[in-house]
Amino acid sequence: MKIDVPDVYVSQTPESLPALLGSVAVIRDLLGGTPDTWTVEEVGDGNLNLVFKVRGPAGGIAVKQALPYVRLVGESWPLPLTRAHFEHLALVRQARHAPGLTPAVVHYDADMALIAMELLEPHIIMRHGMIDGIVYPLFTAALSTLAASTLFHTSDLAMAAGDKKALVADFAGNTALCAITENLIFTEPYMVADNNRWTSPQLDGLAASMRADGDLKVAVLRLKVKFMSSAEAMIHGDLHTGSIMVTQTDTRIIDPEFSFVGPMGFDTGAMIANLLLNYFSQIGHESIPGARDSYRDWVLGSIEEFWNGFRSRFLALWRHEGRGDAYPAVLFDDPVARIRLVREQERYMAGLFRDTLGFAAAKMIRRILGLAHNIDLENIADADVRATAEARALMTSPGHYGSIEAVTAAARQWNAIEPFGAKV
Amino acid sequence: MKIDVPDVYVSQTPESLPALLGSVAVIRDLLGGTPDTWTVEEVGDGNLNLVFKVRGPAGGIAVKQALPYVRLVGESWPLPLTRAHFEHLALVRQARHAPGLTPAVVHYDADMALIAMELLEPHIIMRHGMIDGIVYPLFTAALSTLAASTLFHTSDLAMAAGDKKALVADFAGNTALCAITENLIFTEPYMVADNNRWTSPQLDGLAASMRADGDLKVAVLRLKVKFMSSAEAMIHGDLHTGSIMVTQTDTRIIDPEFSFVGPMGFDTGAMIANLLLNYFSQIGHESIPGARDSYRDWVLGSIEEFWNGFRSRFLALWRHEGRGDAYPAVLFDDPVARIRLVREQERYMAGLFRDTLGFAAAKMIRRILGLAHNIDLENIADADVRATAEARALMTSPGHYGSIEAVTAAARQWNAIEPFGAKV
Repeated sequence: MKIDVPDVYVSQTPESLPALLGSVAVIRDLLGGTPDTWTVEEVGDGNLNLVFKVRGPAGGIAVKQALPYVRLVGESWPLPLTRAHFEHLALVRQARHAPGLTPAVVHYDADMALIAMELLEPHIIMRHGMIDGIVYPLFTAALSTLAASTLFHTSDLAMAAGDKKALVADFAGNTALCAITENLIFTEPYMVADNNRWTSPQLDGLAASMRADGDLKVAVLRLKVKFMSSAEAMIHGDLHTGSIMVTQTDTRIIDPEFSFVGPMGFDTGAMIANLLLNYFSQIGHESIPGARDSYRDWVLGSIEEFWNGFRSRFLALWRHEGRGDAYPAVLFDDPVARIRLVREQERYMAGLFRDTLGFAAAKMIRRILGLAHNIDLENIADADVRATAEARALMTSPGHYGSIEAVTAAARQWNAIEPFGAKV
Repeated sequence: MKIDVPDVYVSQTPESLPALLGSVAVIRDLLGGTPDTWTVEEVGDGNLNLVFKVRGPAGGIAVKQALPYVRLVGESWPLPLTRAHFEHLALVRQARHAPGLTPAVVHYDADMALIAMELLEPHIIMRHGMIDGIVYPLFTAALSTLAASTLFHTSDLAMAAGDKKALVADFAGNTALCAITENLIFTEPYMVADNNRWTSPQLDGLAASMRADGDLKVAVLRLKVKFMSSAEAMIHGDLHTGSIMVTQTDTRIIDPEFSFVGPMGFDTGAMIANLLLNYFSQIGHESIPGARDSYRDWVLGSIEEFWNGFRSRFLALWRHEGRGDAYPAVLFDDPVARIRLVREQERYMAGLFRDTLGFAAAKMIRRILGLAHNIDLENIADADVRATAEARALMTSPGHYGSIEAVTAAARQWNAIEPFGAKV
């Protein structure tokens, strides 16, 4: 892949950044003082990009800059700088539809592929908090609001058809990021691939049986086709607990660089998959068996609250703001027709629930058998314990469930199984 | 709608055209002589555009120019000139995937929204031939080849995901033409709208019952959602017998200005709908009852041949050239997996068949209850006879059929019904 890099592009360092940002009035006003007094801290936890925290006497900002390659891997894995453009586009639109749930954009520099954002403090990455067993009472409301509002308002249910097609075109260039998803989620976990890894030898048999499972493969490939060709709404594209920054009272969704117009269920499924993985990982994080039981209950309850909240918010938006071209109100302007539309809305949500569970299953499998794992599971040092949690997650993933409560009940059941016949 | 018109754009007349075309070397060579010796004939049968035949001593061309409005209606219905751009784009790609089945493009003038094409002689519009009861023995092979080849080769089954997304973006601007379909096919026939008309009073009851049929409306709106959001392949967008020029030995598909990346079943459904409408219209075109029975058999046989030919050609392409990102060969590299893929291909075609029948039904309904009717039916002067044919078509349209032979059998059954209880 040949990466286009503008002539003026320079990857930033803590030393170079103040001079660059000092030319931007809004940043000077926000940080106060002069650039030479600003402190810059490089934050190490971005997989793809450079992330800095910049502070001045009056305030701080977070700065994210794309590199022409994957930061964690290096120049051997090139990745276009344009991902910053798509992230900026998505952040602006998310802020419009779900105000207060994303970091405010302070400044965008296209040539530098750099976004300066509101510094979120004292927020932490939610995944870290969940590994530590911290309850976040407000996050499901925030998450289901962001998902329902951005997905609904960028769909044909809310948009005029022409505006929607323009939105599809706006994001059509984000192919390199989509390709990562297409390969790492929907393809490689089901073949022998150098990128794959899993807890071995414990999961060797499960990995082999999934590679040989024709029904599973075609089910995943149908989801891949949906990912590639269903332009339902602008999705975040990477909506997991590592893309959420939280405090006890505030929730912000970050990092929408994988955004494009795709299937809604990909976002809702990703969220549920990551909560389930955390649920199963608790065996590796509790001090004594059962110490995290109430936390487990909270995680499963959050899965139910997220889906049910999403569902009711989405339906409420459809009822009150369904002015898109998909189901024109003019065709449902009498009481009998309106009742028929309500039934259709229920059917629509049932289809979206099926997609959600399918994408959730694919997301769980890739985090256990594919390239990129979650620290919820990776941080479990004892391989037998980790494999137990992972096997339980894999057993839960590909099911057909009629309700979100059936999903959480199944998770509870699988969490009581000893997959390797040994007490752990 | 504000229509962008380039400063240099001039709508052409038979008088102005030779001077314009005379500046194009390839046209001078093709026509021979000097522009002042060329004859220009304006062809009246374009609904949207100007169409001319231009002849010189050495040969002829057809010239199609978009107007900034709908030709048949006038300036009160503006329509972007960019439709010529999308038609040209589609013609070039169709020629690549289905050589010899479209008119060759001689010259494209973007500023003038003008395409000069191979002059097809002695071809006639197939719809006219079918009204006259003329058999075209080769057309189903040509049509099913064009449909299978262009749909397959522009789908995720054949294309790399990034190239496919670029194709989606290429056509995303054709929103005005898509809006015509969205309104006239998927919306207006199901509401009280000024544009609608039908054979009245004979069909008043049927029209009212369809407007009140909630199940029918939501079924059509699901198809509308699919039309707006399923980017399956580059479709022709208006594939009916009025977009086919034929002789006994040659078949060409013309006029892809409605082209964009949409659901494949829209094209296959449009073809089947238009053949069915012609089938039912034969009652109005035969000299004595039964005189067209063998033609009726040919029409129904052609419907079967078209679908079965499309199906087998599409599957053969998938088997031999399925190198797209949708179902990667690497996941099916052993005999058991290959058998599973064959089953999946059958399922895929069954889904496409369901879509095809759905879109066919919507297309038949709009041609009877909506704005734009087909001359197959319109040319029937006796309103009772016309209404009989139309009612039979409406009864056939919204069914669920397991095979194309079940569709043609149902058509035969409905064609024997006297919907108004009177001998016609």
